[in-house]
Parts: sequence; C-alpha cells; structure tokens
Amino acid sequence: MENSEYFKIKNVDALPPFFMNIVSGSDLWTFASSNGGITAGRRSAEFALFPYYTDDKITDLAETTGSKTIIRKGDMCWEPFSVRSEACFHLERTLYKSRVGNSIIFKETNLDWGLRFSWSWTGSDRFGFVREAKLENLSGDAVGVEIIDGLQNIMPCGVPSGLQQSSSNLVNAYKKTELDPESGMALVCLSAIIIDRAEPSEALKCNVVWQSGLKNPVHLLSTEQLPAFRKGAGVHEETVVKGEPGAYLLGSSMSLKAGESRTWMIVADVAKDATAVVELKDFLLNCADAAAELRKDVDASTARLVDLVASADGVQTTADTARTARHFSNTMFNIMRGGVPMAEATAQNPLPLGFGRRHGDPTRPWNVFNINTKDPVTGKPILDYEGNWRDIFQNWEALAISWPKLTGAMIAKFLDCSTADGYNPYRVTRSGFDWETVDPKNPWSYIGYWGDHQVIYLERLLEAQEAHFPGSLAGMLACEDFVYANVPYRIKPYSEILKNPKSTIEFDSDLSASLKAGMAREGVEAAYVKGRDGHTVKASMMEKLLVSILAKLANFVPEGGIWMNTQRPEWNDANNALVGGGLSVVTLCYLRRELAFLRGIVKDSSPVAEEVLAWMRATVKALKLYDTQAVMDALGESSSVYRKGIYENSFSGLKEELSSEEAVEFFDTALAAVEASIRANRRPDGLWHSYNLLELSEGRFAGIRHLQEMLEGQVAVLSSGVLSPAETLHLLDTLRHSALWREDQRSYMLYPNRELPGFLQKNNLPADALKRSAVLAEMVAKGERVIVSQDRDGGLHWNGDFRNADGLKAALDKAGISGEQAGVVLDLFEETFDHKAFTGRSGTFFAYEGLGSIYWHMVSKLLVAVQECYFDALDTGAPETTALAAHYHEILEGTGIHKTAREYGAFPTDAYSHTPWGKGARQPGMTGQVKEDIICRFGELGVRVREGRVSIDPTLLSDSEFLPDGTLKFSYCGAQVNLHKGGRLDLSEEESQDLFARRLEEINVTA
Amino acid sequence: MENSEYFKIKNVDALPPFFMNIVSGSDLWTFASSNGGITAGRRSAEFALFPYYTDDKITDLAETTGSKTIIRKGDMCWEPFSVRSEACFHLERTLYKSRVGNSIIFKETNLDWGLRFSWSWTGSDRFGFVREAKLENLSGDAVGVEIIDGLQNIMPCGVPSGLQQSSSNLVNAYKKTELDPESGMALVCLSAIIIDRAEPSEALKCNVVWQSGLKNPVHLLSTEQLPAFRKGAGVHEETVVKGEPGAYLLGSSMSLKAGESRTWMIVADVAKDATAVVELKDFLLNCADAAAELRKDVDASTARLVDLVASADGVQTTADTARTARHFSNTMFNIMRGGVPMAEATAQNPLPLGFGRRHGDPTRPWNVFNINTKDPVTGKPILDYEGNWRDIFQNWEALAISWPKLTGAMIAKFLDCSTADGYNPYRVTRSGFDWETVDPKNPWSYIGYWGDHQVIYLERLLEAQEAHFPGSLAGMLACEDFVYANVPYRIKPYSEILKNPKSTIEFDSDLSASLKAGMAREGVEAAYVKGRDGHTVKASMMEKLLVSILAKLANFVPEGGIWMNTQRPEWNDANNALVGGGLSVVTLCYLRRELAFLRGIVKDSSPVAEEVLAWMRATVKALKLYDTQAVMDALGESSSVYRKGIYENSFSGLKEELSSEEAVEFFDTALAAVEASIRANRRPDGLWHSYNLLELSEGRFAGIRHLQEMLEGQVAVLSSGVLSPAETLHLLDTLRHSALWREDQRSYMLYPNRELPGFLQKNNLPADALKRSAVLAEMVAKGERVIVSQDRDGGLHWNGDFRNADGLKAALDKAGISGEQAGVVLDLFEETFDHKAFTGRSGTFFAYEGLGSIYWHMVSKLLVAVQECYFDALDTGAPETTALAAHYHEILEGTGIHKTAREYGAFPTDAYSHTPWGKGARQPGMTGQVKEDIICRFGELGVRVREGRVSIDPTLLSDSEFLPDGTLKFSYCGAQVNLHKGGRLDLSEEESQDLFARRLEEINVTA
Repeated sequence: MENSEYFKIKNVDALPPFFMNIVSGSDLWTFASSNGGITAGRRSAEFALFPYYTDDKITDLAETTGSKTIIRKGDMCWEPFSVRSEACFHLERTLYKSRVGNSIIFKETNLDWGLRFSWSWTGSDRFGFVREAKLENLSGDAVGVEIIDGLQNIMPCGVPSGLQQSSSNLVNAYKKTELDPESGMALVCLSAIIIDRAEPSEALKCNVVWQSGLKNPVHLLSTEQLPAFRKGAGVHEETVVKGEPGAYLLGSSMSLKAGESRTWMIVADVAKDATAVVELKDFLLNCADAAAELRKDVDASTARLVDLVASADGVQTTADTARTARHFSNTMFNIMRGGVPMAEATAQNPLPLGFGRRHGDPTRPWNVFNINTKDPVTGKPILDYEGNWRDIFQNWEALAISWPKLTGAMIAKFLDCSTADGYNPYRVTRSGFDWETVDPKNPWSYIGYWGDHQVIYLERLLEAQEAHFPGSLAGMLACEDFVYANVPYRIKPYSEILKNPKSTIEFDSDLSASLKAGMAREGVEAAYVKGRDGHTVKASMMEKLLVSILAKLANFVPEGGIWMNTQRPEWNDANNALVGGGLSVVTLCYLRRELAFLRGIVKDSSPVAEEVLAWMRATVKALKLYDTQAVMDALGESSSVYRKGIYENSFSGLKEELSSEEAVEFFDTALAAVEASIRANRRPDGLWHSYNLLELSEGRFAGIRHLQEMLEGQVAVLSSGVLSPAETLHLLDTLRHSALWREDQRSYMLYPNRELPGFLQKNNLPADALKRSAVLAEMVAKGERVIVSQDRDGGLHWNGDFRNADGLKAALDKAGISGEQAGVVLDLFEETFDHKAFTGRSGTFFAYEGLGSIYWHMVSKLLVAVQECYFDALDTGAPETTALAAHYHEILEGTGIHKTAREYGAFPTDAYSHTPWGKGARQPGMTGQVKEDIICRFGELGVRVREGRVSIDPTLLSDSEFLPDGTLKFSYCGAQVNLHKGGRLDLSEEESQDLFARRLEEINVTA
Repeated sequence: MENSEYFKIKNVDALPPFFMNIVSGSDLWTFASSNGGITAGRRSAEFALFPYYTDDKITDLAETTGSKTIIRKGDMCWEPFSVRSEACFHLERTLYKSRVGNSIIFKETNLDWGLRFSWSWTGSDRFGFVREAKLENLSGDAVGVEIIDGLQNIMPCGVPSGLQQSSSNLVNAYKKTELDPESGMALVCLSAIIIDRAEPSEALKCNVVWQSGLKNPVHLLSTEQLPAFRKGAGVHEETVVKGEPGAYLLGSSMSLKAGESRTWMIVADVAKDATAVVELKDFLLNCADAAAELRKDVDASTARLVDLVASADGVQTTADTARTARHFSNTMFNIMRGGVPMAEATAQNPLPLGFGRRHGDPTRPWNVFNINTKDPVTGKPILDYEGNWRDIFQNWEALAISWPKLTGAMIAKFLDCSTADGYNPYRVTRSGFDWETVDPKNPWSYIGYWGDHQVIYLERLLEAQEAHFPGSLAGMLACEDFVYANVPYRIKPYSEILKNPKSTIEFDSDLSASLKAGMAREGVEAAYVKGRDGHTVKASMMEKLLVSILAKLANFVPEGGIWMNTQRPEWNDANNALVGGGLSVVTLCYLRRELAFLRGIVKDSSPVAEEVLAWMRATVKALKLYDTQAVMDALGESSSVYRKGIYENSFSGLKEELSSEEAVEFFDTALAAVEASIRANRRPDGLWHSYNLLELSEGRFAGIRHLQEMLEGQVAVLSSGVLSPAETLHLLDTLRHSALWREDQRSYMLYPNRELPGFLQKNNLPADALKRSAVLAEMVAKGERVIVSQDRDGGLHWNGDFRNADGLKAALDKAGISGEQAGVVLDLFEETFDHKAFTGRSGTFFAYEGLGSIYWHMVSKLLVAVQECYFDALDTGAPETTALAAHYHEILEGTGIHKTAREYGAFPTDAYSHTPWGKGARQPGMTGQVKEDIICRFGELGVRVREGRVSIDPTLLSDSEFLPDGTLKFSYCGAQVNLHKGGRLDLSEEESQDLFARRLEEINVTA
C-alpha cells in the first residue's frame, strides 16, 4: 500500500470536513469524511460495516464510529484525529488519498510527544476492509505507551439501513459481539433478524473483524472500558458483549526506540455465514504469514481496479500529475456508473458491460445504490448494466471513445427503448427498460417523460458513429430492425393539454401490470409495441428518428421553444416548476444540431409507417403557418391525431418509402423554423435565453415571458451550431462578466445568485389589502385568523400554515368565501408571493442546483461546447481561435484540477457534483461531469476523429504537460499513444479502423 | 428557578450517559441525555427545536447539538460538558433535576481555573425553552475570559422528523437563519417547505431564539467561526447563514471579580408565524425587564404543572424526600398518559379529562407522541384523551383513587368499547374507539385482539366501584344502558381455529371503511352494533360482563389455561410467538378473581339476550364434561354458534331474565373449573406456570407443554385470590431464590437470563444429517450450497439466508425436493433450531422485555399483588403477615427509590421502563409502573377503602418517613391528610362519601 502514489492535504483540519468516495474494483464501498468519519460495506447500504447515514451525520459521528485510537503516556492520552486531543497537544493532521482512489491515510503528528500515528483504509476483494495502523517514534528517545486501537460502532449483519437510521436504539438491543478466543476474531452479530411478526428469524450471517501484527493484545468488544482507560486504568478482555454497538479494540503496551515504528492491521468484512467464518478462522490459525497474504490481495485488488480503468483509457502519464489523476478518476467514475466491456460483444449481448452499478452515496439519500457486479455464489463478474436514461447514455458517450465499435449497439439500445409517441422510459437495464409508476399510497410517486438528454445524447452517439464509420448511418436508415417500447403512459390530446398543461399523461396501471408480468414471463419482447397483427412492430431507423423529432416539434412554440408538457422537466430537475409552462430553448438548440446532422447524411429513401409519414407531412405544413396560435394548434392537433391512432389501433403495418428529397425538405423546413426561433432568443446583452414561460389565456397563446439568464442556455446555443466564431466569442466574453460568474471558484453558476426575502419581508399583504377585500377586513376586525392575521404594528400576514394558493383556497372554501370575494383574496396572495414566476426548487435551496451553487456537470458541458467551437474556429482559420482557447482554459481551470485543496474544499483530483456558495465541493465522484471531462481530455490531447480517420494534433495542450524527455503517454482505444512535443499525426483509414477495433497496441506521434 | 428544589448527581460523568424526560404543564417537551445531548419542541416531533432522533443518537451528537459554551482564557479553551475539555482540566460535573421534573441543570467546575459554569433548561408556556447560563468566579482573583455561549443545530420550522432522520443533509440545503439586528433575535427558517412536487411551498413559520442578560454580544448564526475562536481569533457578527444548521451563539468578553458571577438567558421557541414574530420583537424592544417577565412565566408554568399533579394527589410531604418525589413523578406521568379531570363531569362529558397525550419518546422510535392538550388558536386546554386500551385503563385505575366518582364512567367507557364477541378494540378515544387495520401495502400492518388487561383492569375498576359505593354495581347489573362496539373483525369458527390457530380473524375491510365513514358523519353511534331492527343494540351490564367472560372461557383448556388464539399476545407482547399456541395461566388467574367477585355481588335477576344466555348455558354444560378434548370442543363449538349468529343476524332483540340463582350456578361452575386448572399449574418448586403451550395433532388436543418460569405468572396467581397466606409466603420465598432474581438490582426479571448459543454454535446440523438425508448428501457432494454448506472441518451449516423453515421450504421447492425427502430436511432444521419452543422476541434481544432485562412495570405489579396479600393476611391475623411485609419492602426497595444514582443508572426519583442486564435504567417516565406504584403508595400510607368507608392505618409505613415533628402530609381525593405518628382513623360512611366527592379539605389522623 505504502508504495503506491498518494496525494496529500496538509493541515487537513484547517479545511471544513469534506466527503470522499473510496472505491474498489469489486463490491466494496467506502465513504469517508476528512475528519475520520466513515461508512463502508459491500454491495449496498444493506451490507454495512459501519452505519450508513447521510454525510453530515457521518462527519458528526466521527468520534463514536469507525477508527479509534487512544495512546496513553503517563497520565495523558492522545487520540489522533479526535476533538478530544485538539486542545491538549500541538498536532499536525495530514490526509492522503491514493492516485488510484482506493485508499486513504489519516496521519497525525504529535509534536509535543514526537510521535506520529497513522491509519489507512483500503480494500481487499478477498478479505474485506483493511485498516493498517502505524505508530512512529520521531523523537531521539525511547518511549513507552499504552495503546487502545481499533474500530467502534461496527454494524452486525442483517440490519436494514432505514431501520438503523430511524431506530438505532432498537437495533442496539439485538446486537451481540463475540470473540473467538483462538483466532482473536470478533463476530459482530444480531441475536435475531429484527421483525415485528411472531416468528423465529435467525440471523445466520455476521460481520467479522480480526487483526494481524499485534502480539497478544487485550480484545475489547465494546467501548465500555475506554473512559476508565483514559483515566489510567488497565483493560481486561471482553469475550461477549450484548445489547451494545459492536467494537473491536485492541489493548497493548508498546516500547519504541528512537526512530522505531510499529505497524499492525485490522481487517473487517461483512455477511459471513458459518462456513465462511470457519474458513477464515482456519486461515487465521494456520496461515504462516497472514499479513503477507493480506498485502498480496490488497495489491491484487488495486491491480484489478487499475486494469478496469486502463481498459477504458483512464491511464495517462504526463508532467501534470493532477490532471492525469483526475482523468483516471473521471474514467473510473464513468465506468462505475455506465459500466465497461468485460467480454467480447455478441449478438446476444451486444453491450457486454460489467462493473456499472445503480449509483448513490451518503450525500444523495434519495438514491439507493447497488453494486451488483459480482455473483455472490461464484464470485465472478456479472455482465449487467442499469441506470436512469438520463445517466446511462451520458456515461456511454464517453465510453464510446474507447470502444467505438460499440456505438452502434448503444444507438440501437437507445432507439429500441424509445416509445411510439416519441419519448423515452425512465430507466434502462440490460434486459430492457423500466418506467415509473403511480402508487396511490405513496405521495412521492409520480410519472412523466423527461425530455432531457433525449435529443443531444442520441445526436452525439450518431455523430460519433458517423465520424468513426462514415456512411454507416446512412446505410442503416432504411433498416427495419427497430422496435417501440410500450411504456404505459398515454399523452392526452392537445386540447386537454391546453386546459391543464401540468396534467397531461394518463397512467395505464392495468397495462403497466400486464407488461411487467409479460416481461417477467417472456422478457422485454413482451413490452414492445405490437401491431394489429399481434406481432412486434418493426420500424426503420429513419422512422424512429422521425418520431422522436416530431414529438419535440409537436410542442414547438415559434420564438418560444419546445413546450415542456410531459409532466417532467428537462435536464435540470430543480427547475421542475417549469413543467407545464416552460418553453425550452435548450431543446430547440439541440434539435437544431440533430436536424442539421441528419439532413447531411440522408442519401436514400427509407420505409416509414404511414402514420408517421402523415404526421411528418402535417408537421411540415404546420411549420409553414405564420401565426403562433396557428402553428401550435396545427402541430398539437396533428400530434394528437397520430397518438390517438397508435394508442387505440396501433400501427396499420402499411409503410411508404420516404424519399431522400422529401426527408431533406422536412429537415430544411424544421431547421428554418428552429433556427429562426433560436435567433429570436438572443438577449440584448448577448447571452441567450434558456427557458421561457408560455402564457396561456383560456387555452390560447397569450405571449412568451422570459426568465433570468441561465448557464444551460448558453451551453445549448454554443452546441447548436448556429453561432459563428465571432458570436461564440462574444457570448463567452459576455458570460464571463455576467452574474453567472462566481469569482471565488472562478467558474459559472447555473443561475445568478440572489437573496431570498427575509422571513419578515416575505409574508406581507399589500398595504391596501383590507380596502380591496371586504371579507378580509371583516375577519381582521373580528380577530379571525384563519386567512390572515394582523400584527401589533398593523402588518397583515397570511396564515403561516399556507404553503401556496391551494392552502388558501381550502381555507376560503371552509370559511364559505367564494366568487369574486375569493378572487380578490387570491389575487392578493399572488401579489404577495409572485408564484407565477416560480421555476422550481432551484430558487429555494442553497446546495445542489440551488441558489449560488456551482453545478459542475453544467460547467463541463460548457467546456465541451467551447472545445467544439474552438475546433470549428481552428478548422476554419477563424481569428477568434486563440481567444476561444483562452476561454477554454479558463473554464477548464475553473473546474478545479489545479486549485488548492483549500480553494476546492476537497482533493481536486476527484470530480464533485456541486459547490455551494461559500463552501467546499460536495458529492464526490458520481457526477455527469466526469463524462464531459473525458471527452474534453481527448480533445486537449489533440485526438479527433473525422471521416473515419484519427488525427492527433494537440493544439489545446499546454507544453508543460510534457515530461522532461519531451514526451507524454496516454491510452486511446486501448493503444498506448506516445506523444512527442510538437508531434502530430494523421492515421490512415485502415490504421484508424484497426485502432477503433482496439487492434493497435502503440502509436507514436512524433514531431 | 434557582429557588425550587433539585436532586443532584455528583460526578455524573462517572455514570454511563442516561436519558431524561423533562416535562411541562403545557405542550413543551424536552428529552435530554446526562452528557448534555438534547431534543426539545412543542406538541410532537414535527415541531422540534433540535433534531428528534433516538436516545443513542442524541447522546452521541451532544458535541454538535444543543448547548455549546467555549470559555477562552489565554490560549486555552474550556468547553463545559464537552469531550474536548476532559483531558485538559480537572473538572467536576454535576447534574441537577428539579423535584417538579420540569428543569435540569448541568454544572461544571473547572478546578484548574477556579471557574464554574452551569446552564439550566426549563420551560415557559409563553416563551418556550429557557436556558439560563451562569459563570461563577470561585477563585480569589479577578479573571477575564472570552466566551462563546449558545445553541447549535437548531431546527427550522417545518421539517418532518422522518426526513431529518433519513436525509438531514438535504434538509440542511434548505436552512436559512436570519438575525433581526434590532432585537438580537434569530429566526431559524426553511427557505421553503421541502417537497418533491413542482409547486411553490412557502415556509411561513420559523423557530426563534433570543437572549436576555448579555450586553451587545456578537451574534453567530452558525458554528463556522468556532474553530478559529478556539485558536484565539476574534468573532464577527453573522446576520444571515444559508445551507447550514442554524445556531445562536453569543460572543462576549467578561471580567469577573473574585467571587463574582454573571447570568444570562437564551430563549427559544418553535412555529412562530410573522404576526407572532412581530409580537415577540415588540416585546424585546419595549419590555423594560424581559428577564423578569421570563422568570415570572417560568414560575407560573411550574405552578401550573404542580397544580395539575396536586389535583391528582401527587403532592406528599414526608421525611423521605426521594419517595415523595417519586410519587410526584409517578402521578405526573400517570396523568400525562391517562389525563386528569379539568372540568366538572357532565352527561355529555362524563370523563372531562385533559393533559393526557398519545405517548412516545426518543427511546421508543415505534411510538409517535402527540401532546394535543392546548388549542393552538385559543391556547385553552383541550379536554380529550386517547390511548391504547392497554394503557389508558391502567392509568385511569390510579386516577380513580383520587376521583372515585369517575369510576362508574370509566367502567361504562370500558364496557361500551367491548365487542359482541367479547373482546376490546385497540385504541380508546374520547369520542369512541379505533381499531388496527390491514393495509396490504404495509407489511407491518396487522390486526388481532389483545386479550391482556381486559379481565384484570375491568375487575379492578369494578372492585374499586364496589368498595367505594357498595351495592352500586349490583344495582347496575340489570341496567340496559350498554352497547356493543362493532369492531370489523370476525373470529373464525372453532374448526378453522383448530386448523390454523395463528390465523383466526377475518378483517372486514369494507365494513371497516363504512364504519369509519359513519363515525366521521354521525359519531361513535355509527360504530355500535345494530340489531335486526336497525337500532343500536342495548345490553345490561350483566350481559356485557357475561360476554367477556364467556369469550375467555370459550378458549379454556382444562389444566392448561386460556388459549391465546386471537392473533395477538397477552400483556407481554415480546412473547408474541405464544399467539396461536399459548395457554395463559395468567388470564385464568385474573378470571378467577373476577368470577369470585361477581359471584359475591349478584343479588337480583338481569335481562340478558337470548343468544348470550344460550351461550352461557352451553358453557356451563361444557365445563362439566370430563375429557379435555370434549371440553374444548363443546366450548369452542358453542362459541362458534354464538358468533356465527351475531355476525350474520345480529341479536334477535329477545331477552330473558337471568335469575341470580342461575348466575351464581354459572359462576360456581366456572370457578370450580378455573380454580382446579390454576391448581394444576403449580410447579414442583412452588412457583407457578405463567404460560403453557397447547400441542395439537391433526386438529386434536395432544398435550400441554410447560414453559420456563416467568414473573408474570407469579404475579397473577398472587392476585388470583386462590393462595393462602402460607402459600403466598412460600411462593415469594421461592421466587426470591429463583433464577428470576437479579442480584445487582435486587429485583426480578421477567424470565431467567440465559445465554444464547454463540454464532458458531447455533447453525450446526446434527452429525448424522448426511446419513439421514440422501438429498443433502448429494448436494454437499456436488458442492451445491443453496440448502447447506460444508465447512472445511466437515461441519454442516444451513444457508445463511434462511431465517426460519419458510426460507428452507422455498429453497426446497426451488430445488424440486418434496415429500418425504423434504420432510427429513425440515426435521433436521427443527432439530437444529428448536423453533417449536420459540416464544417471541423476548428470547432474542437484550433490552426492553428481553434477556436479562428487568421490566419494571411487572415488578410493580408484583408489589401491588404482594400488598394485597399482605392486607389479606393482616385482616385475618395470619402469622405470615410480618414476613409478607418484609417481602413487600424488599420488592419496593428493588424498584430503586433509595438506590444510588450509580446503582439505578439515572435519577432514582423517576420511574424508568426497564433495566437491561449490566446497564442503567432505560426509558424514562412513561411506564405502566407509575400506576402500580401510586396504588401501592396509598396502601403504604394505610389508606384502604372497604364497604364505602375509608380507613387510614399505615401498617406498612416506616416510622422514618415522619418528619421531626412526628407528622407527615399527603393528599387524598384532594384533601390534605395530616398523619401523626401512631395515628389511625376510620372515617364514617358520610365522611367517606364526602371525601370521595372531593368535598373534604383536610383530614387529621392522630394517635
């Protein structure tokens, strides 16, 4: 362990505690706080070694959970990393994290005593969690100490994480920790599985802890003796402890000569049955050198993790170790979420991915992670993947750089999971797809179509496919190999949507149940749309692409954007209140890019279902109308007709050839409309609108209301392809001086930070309220406070129990106030709170996508967009090229790779999801940012793929990245690229295709 | 505050942290750990000032939640009660709790600095939570310090407790704490109510904190500056803090002369709307002496609480201050649960109780408490009560001592809530009753009839009524004023119960829904059983009593007990696995007492429904049969016939007069059968069986299996009235030397403690398993591990995922193993685990009613029973009288009143629910023990009520309880009793009845 590479943060206790994800190549998970707090386990939170709580609680409970060391010398005690010792000694605390990311070391030097204590956490696939402790005598004198060292609050096996969170005291009553005296191993058990039913429930698995390195320590299985030890008492062995949190603490005396050090290891694992315990015990009793075996497996575990990351081109060697470490980390987190190929692709398993997992961590309590990567019986890797549509395709996009040959299968998976009404299901799994359901008992359950990602992620996969294998898409357009996912949502007719654009989808719960039953019986085939003949409907790629584009255009509002009326928001779901009223300029921009791309590749005719063709033709007509209302109505109605047809009668099976000419006409018409609308969304300051609000009045278009500037719209317009290099540069210059810039982090927020009104400012009725409302005046006069109350200064305030107008309406109803009188009161309420402008929770909280927060994924999306614009400028020799490169580098630096730990608030070698105003980075690792940064990194290294050929020309790369010998190395499609300073290279088509097939081992790029 | 009486624990930090309930006379609740950890709020956990977690977490989070003080002198910091200072100074920590129970003081002396710091928590009904801090200079020199003092982790208003427990980091993102600079008040807010839906949700209430006593302090609203302050930095005012836990910390410099002290107060309250905040601000800006106002309300709040307790005879003055404090505390907790009369009884509200609440606390995470005692709008007390049947009647029993005139209404409430099939609903409310329902979505939902309490609590109310008002019951027996509760449970026919005695009740969910709808419309009347004519069925008291007795006898198993086959256990629900198979000797004993009592009061005939009479007559016949099977069958069948009749056709309305002769014959027959069966349950050692197991074989009686000794059975047989004083003494002597005795606490456990097998001992198949099972042998040979696995030493272990035979059965099914082969494997499983003998979770955990634990309520039930036996012996001049008194006092001392805090593990002046093996008392206050102890206390004081007359003759009272002047005082029925040493008194019937009507003010008992 000691010999691998580590990054360190000195005086880590000068930073507010931050959170880390310590990874493994198997199912071991560890999350730690920089103050020593920790949770760990295998597979999921249900197999925890330490309680699985949210990160704030893990930090706050560091004193009683995880590592604990007490070193006693004379009548003083030193407890490394504990608040107990901070006031007593001069201490130096340093935190290390290994470059590979699977190990951390907490190190504390006691300057008064001349002693240093450190412990590391790392994983062994075979043995579990390995904590190596080391005590060093830095002084020139021999020293003798009494020490207690080990782990506290060890969980038994079999406790549901939710029960531990809500009822840990009840769980404690069931805990039993036993010492196996022969081996010195502790078995941390439940006396029974905790259930409320009157039946026996044996707990036949336990968590285990053992040690290697200390001779004849005293074993403590609880913390009961610690207070006395601190006061000078001796300790006695504990052989069984009941009704208390489990602990494994070793008491020992040590004498260290000057300069001498002592190390030992404590090892813990979860979910061992009796057979496994006997095996481990046998190992402990009979293995000649357990420590050596342990180190061997720790090294092997590290090697396995490195191999996985290396296979996805995660390993680079340049002079910028921070940058390459971040790339390693990015690649690791990308494959942790999306998976990585672990076998040859076959017809049965065209995407043979493993290692991916359902993600989550203690910073995201709403996510339930599950590392289903290893068969629990055979121990072999499981080839499986699962993820939200929103996540999985983004991780695959980065993965496709290294496995270009899988891009086609990714596109196919994408298209086969999209629906006949043009949307995508919630979750994608290897075996098919899944959707959200409505559970009347669960108020949090909800359904809808997220439109986000659908356009751009597909488009990027299509572009990659075309770039690597030119013409291949054109050849597939006519291929009728695709299907429609039958998600049991039914979008209401346009007329209904106009009436209530927030409630637009019927959930067909019977169909949902029967589809799920069918899938359980026959697999995903059961959930594909069937034609009138009962067979699965097959569609050409052209048809599938058309359907998704038409579904977007169906909601096109000229000059406004794409109307978000499918009950879910776009990318940023903290803007969830835009649902129903929002118009997405973002989607418009991505649609523009897709339309332009497809227009460019259409060569021949393709068979298209008559229903889709009719819809397309109606759309073309509609787009040529002039009046906004007319366009909306025509698009909405024709979509309704299409949907009604396929919902009620499915596809007729009749197809027609769509000629390339007609297809191009469609694309041109759509492009013209879309581009004009994008152009209409340029703000006077040179930024672009991101989302607008559609105003409706009695079911008719009544105007478009602009919202504040947002980062997302700038990214989208930069990606859209409509801007010239000059416009791009203007946008970026403006952005840099806009309210989206956050100087302390030298980066961009999603929206300008703003102050919410103070408590006493926000709930005040207008001064003339009582004049305007006779009812209110009467109630106030009577002292009735169910609607408003008057304070002693005369101020009027709404009932504090109201949350929005619904609460007021209910109170008005109850008070028998209706009609005009009620209207007046409701108007006063809206005047007070301006709820019309409410865009979602983004404006109400202070972390995540909230006020003042930097949401790093969007910053890196900006980075990708700017890199693309830079290359466009470069390719056309535009004069803005250098300035664009400067913007690129400024945005890149903003993401933090070269920030100090204090600026970044954590190890800058890991991506974090967001950085709240005035605080450090939050939510380690599992962010979409990693995918964007992988893409950018290859661009920086000069890797570009055009027309089936690879060129390497690192125009964005800083010379300082070259090693002293003038070279640097990186991996690409599994080949090692040796890049020499000043080097550039164009691979031939044949070489390029060999590379894409991962048949090249080495590429030299010389000057 | 300082002038009220306090108990103290010196060196409280030498005890493991314990938990306290700090009460109030209004809706303020506070729970604190002796290490300083705290949660508090109003009404329920949903209006918390500090996070509402379980007690273990509150203790573990003391460092970051609640009170925080940092006193800096030179370069050293002292933090009272913090682990941060323990190693740096010589400290003395003392904890105080007020006799009234509404205030605690944490006091720490820094011997090195000669300083003492203390803070108290107490409640003000008007202002909320008052924390008074005091810094004293004990030294002879002036001293100057920098201090930060205040509160941390203050909750905003509007966070559901479950969300805080599972997702506190998400909650943090919504927090906003603002300073009102003018008043120095902090408003701790949510920026919005946290919801997942896309709608505005204003947070219009906040929690508030302010101070009085410090001049111009620096206000901190977060803990951000604390680390720097500890290192010597100054602090600067914070006016708004976002996305962080709220805090209210005051920075100040202080110079104290020798002996000088300084005090200040920090006051916090919850759920203030804008109007209330304006009012408070106005108070702070304009009140001349806020501190005085505060103290005035604190005193008034204490007085209100004392008045409530005093009204329930909680106030006593003797030389034994511990004993009288415990009685005060017992009375307080008794009325907190069951309520206390707060108005005159009327026909509309015959039980005008207030102050009672749905109970719960952080030690009972499965309970949700709700203090609905005050109208949130008017602030007036609410007259209401609500509680589990199991709880409310026990609290009322003790209350009835002080309000004997309410006993009749309690009996009526009891009877009107019982069902036509003879059981009782789950919950009793002022407006009616409620039952558990089956929710198919909730695996924890379950229904059934708890038979416990039904017999004995009714019987004790009946006895009290007869003792106070002799002949009144006899007069009511014929009165047809009673009704039947229509709980929508339908007990299956006897033949079905025999087939599966664990599943015996059908839940009629349609009926449940319609009853609830009816109650919502028309009140409880809708949920009474209706006759064939559609009118509410009316029954005489005799009929109601008969029905409940017959329902018990229906399950009578001669020599075995009452078969527990209504899906719920008896009193001790940790023995829940007895359901279906258990036979209760306990119920038999209480039934005996009731039968004997009723036999003694019957005078005249009473009208009884023909169906009930037929059932009674069939029961008499059945009880005279000789063979166990015949008795069971006859009882079971006749009950089935009765139930089928009333379930399907209700009552005919035809009644017959039950003559007193026939009634007496019935009671005699039942008594004979019951007494003989009790007698059959004497163990050879002189203890008595508590519960037996009914063995059935193919639906026929196959024997009775005895279980281990339990305390409950001894209590029941002592209460039953069957034992002579000699037998009683023998039982108690035996009990004292039995395995139920716990020497360290000098008291009795529910069951003998026992060692559970170790992890490696419990899951081992018999050695010959592979010989006996060919299938297993084959699977082991093949290395298939789905059923068993073999360890490397040859040991065989069941799959660690099995919890009981159901898991094994599923695995056998999946493996295609059935018939005889499966039978062999299942037999091996049962041999391994002996699940037949599983009695419930009592044998699987180490606290509550679990292994080694003392469950105090049962100890005090023993105390009540022994006191009754003592009085019987006394009245008959039995020679065992003195020895019984000695047992009484030993048991009484065991309950802890005079134990040291170290022995007891908490303030011994408060009752706690249980004491686990080797640990301190757990679960403060809200235990049934308080009711038993109140009953006993009046017996000790010599108060007895017989034949309508009160006598006072304190034969059990220790002389040492008399004050130096030879008197002591206590309150009884609201009258002050002045008892002189050696005094005794018999009140006349008229005086006694005046006393029962609470018309006496003072009684002097002189020698």
